[in-house]
Amino acid sequence: MRAYDPQSVGIVEKHYAHFDHPLALRSGKTLERFTLAYETYGTLNADRSNAILIFHALSGDSHVAGYYTGDPDEKPGWWDDAVGAGKMFDTRRYFVICANVIGGCQGSTGPSSLAPDGKPYALRFPVITVADMVAAQRHLIDRLGIDRLFAVAGGSMGAMQALQWVVDYPGRAANCLFLAATPRSSTQNIAFNEIGRQAIYADPRWNQGDYYGGEPPDGGLAVARMVGHITYMSEHSLDNKFGRRLQGHDALPYTLLEPEFAVENYLHHQGEKFVQRFDANSYLYITKALDYFDIQESYSTMAESLARTSTDTDFLVVSFSSDWLYTAAQAQELVSALEHTGRNVSYHAVQADFGHDSFLVEVETMTHIVGGYLDAQWALTQESLAAD
Amino acid sequence: MRAYDPQSVGIVEKHYAHFDHPLALRSGKTLERFTLAYETYGTLNADRSNAILIFHALSGDSHVAGYYTGDPDEKPGWWDDAVGAGKMFDTRRYFVICANVIGGCQGSTGPSSLAPDGKPYALRFPVITVADMVAAQRHLIDRLGIDRLFAVAGGSMGAMQALQWVVDYPGRAANCLFLAATPRSSTQNIAFNEIGRQAIYADPRWNQGDYYGGEPPDGGLAVARMVGHITYMSEHSLDNKFGRRLQGHDALPYTLLEPEFAVENYLHHQGEKFVQRFDANSYLYITKALDYFDIQESYSTMAESLARTSTDTDFLVVSFSSDWLYTAAQAQELVSALEHTGRNVSYHAVQADFGHDSFLVEVETMTHIVGGYLDAQWALTQESLAAD
Repeated sequence: MRAYDPQSVGIVEKHYAHFDHPLALRSGKTLERFTLAYETYGTLNADRSNAILIFHALSGDSHVAGYYTGDPDEKPGWWDDAVGAGKMFDTRRYFVICANVIGGCQGSTGPSSLAPDGKPYALRFPVITVADMVAAQRHLIDRLGIDRLFAVAGGSMGAMQALQWVVDYPGRAANCLFLAATPRSSTQNIAFNEIGRQAIYADPRWNQGDYYGGEPPDGGLAVARMVGHITYMSEHSLDNKFGRRLQGHDALPYTLLEPEFAVENYLHHQGEKFVQRFDANSYLYITKALDYFDIQESYSTMAESLARTSTDTDFLVVSFSSDWLYTAAQAQELVSALEHTGRNVSYHAVQADFGHDSFLVEVETMTHIVGGYLDAQWALTQESLAAD
Repeated sequence: MRAYDPQSVGIVEKHYAHFDHPLALRSGKTLERFTLAYETYGTLNADRSNAILIFHALSGDSHVAGYYTGDPDEKPGWWDDAVGAGKMFDTRRYFVICANVIGGCQGSTGPSSLAPDGKPYALRFPVITVADMVAAQRHLIDRLGIDRLFAVAGGSMGAMQALQWVVDYPGRAANCLFLAATPRSSTQNIAFNEIGRQAIYADPRWNQGDYYGGEPPDGGLAVARMVGHITYMSEHSLDNKFGRRLQGHDALPYTLLEPEFAVENYLHHQGEKFVQRFDANSYLYITKALDYFDIQESYSTMAESLARTSTDTDFLVVSFSSDWLYTAAQAQELVSALEHTGRNVSYHAVQADFGHDSFLVEVETMTHIVGGYLDAQWALTQESLAAD
């Protein structure tokens, strides 16, 4: 049994919430019933006012922090640096919730789940949007008896969900934390996602999505992951980490099939790790949802869509200078539109070298910004309660 | 029969030069014999002093300009805007040569060529470098009886060859034109190329390179091309060209398998076009050569490698602000090292929106810069001859 850092949330458990009613989707289709896998950390206070819903990114899941077993080799959740005692989402004060998105493959209903006919959905799974992901989680928050979240928060696709939440459910979150993301997927964002999907389609094992029980399309999915991964790192961080260093050789071996440069080996490793934990069809559906994402869809301007949010909801927006997937300019478009709409918004343009991954890697800076923002907003809420 | 623009070089012919001697390669291996496919435009003058050797990029070939047939639907060579009467490489004055690189698939010896045993080389083809490509072309220039080229020139991988030429064959070119390129492939450059290769390897039809006479790995090669293509365009130019425009629909159809956004359709089209004209094994070998490229390899500094060039060789370097494949910073590293070495270098940092493709697309600017540079250098040469 390992000894946990006193800041760690320690051993945690995955819960499942089953919903036996249909979920109406943006596409016009319906998901007959659905399950959400979720985890919680910290304790919900008596007046249910301290809950923070964290949304995960493309390849994430409900396991934000802590460990499932006592195995010393087990890695903690994907944002363990962020959730725990004294961390940016301080579990001594907040009750943190995270659910696997619908369309995912870590316990929530997705293409690998069994349809009502007892067979995997595969491509019969309906196309989903970020709004649909959020709609499913709204049912979970209802079931947990939480009327108003203290905050919704996320990085990357998680931030898109947070923004969609405050537009679609005005008044149901006091704060929206939008980190390393865009209010609208760009042409280049769509292009990179489509290349990943094409890599999966090109794998004959994909078999039009019908591979459950057989060999999954690991080759195509690994290439898709490599394409994605390269967009998460900056040119500088790749150069800094690997440069032109050779893999296991002092001089170039001049060979075609083995990795010669360390960066090639790294990419292979990323691809191989990913296929062990992710479903190719989920990758297709979730990247589609990313492409569809445009907070101003069905509104004539971004400000008009943001005017749907409650005037009581405040915003934190953080962008990273070297993030070329979701650029500072994209975040600034949101900030301008929020200001235009009269919302309170704190914006931090962080100088950071790690590209899109900066929101996960720059722990000290993020603890300062996110933790500081939440502290201040919490204090304001308490003052306001005391004054009532 | 079409009517040609008076600036066009008109109907041209592909020539083949066969070399029955071995070519020693950087890897230590040897190519037993080799053929170079090449084209020429304009007329070699009496003292053989007006020749310009243009090198092509990854997906290019010897067909720089003009047409093979009179078919009105035929597209001209890949840099037809650059080579012709009054164009940046003015065929009224210069004799322009371009050869398909070894390792290629448009007539020069490559993996799809027959080995001495009468069967295609496939993966038996030796790994090649940019220096090897240049060494092969040195034999062609010898055979054409040209001692000293007026210029070597190229964009992207073509620029790498031009730079390698003046380092490896000092005194055999008066000018080196280095456009939209890097003196050393970066970690990110290698990473993108490796993803393209992995897409090809993941296609079962690739069959360890042994597919000649059967079905080629078009699926994998198309994905590789899409990965490459996206690095040739800027985020701005993609956005400007396609934005979030839908493909053949007024509203999102929410479907998985058809292209929904115009940019997806565009990428598919690029992939489909490419597999009709390119060999997957050539793509592997040539991207490897790109990755190996580092002009200072086997020297302790870049300046030291450049000191090998003739003091009589002058340089033109052009970079493009939105080129994120080969950035202005990479070009500037070369410019600094050239200046440190005491070489004459003209450097233009062009503000352009089209990313890496700018060197092909910004015709007016390039005609001004490249044509102007060549005019001035030609005038200097004539003055110097008159003074002798």
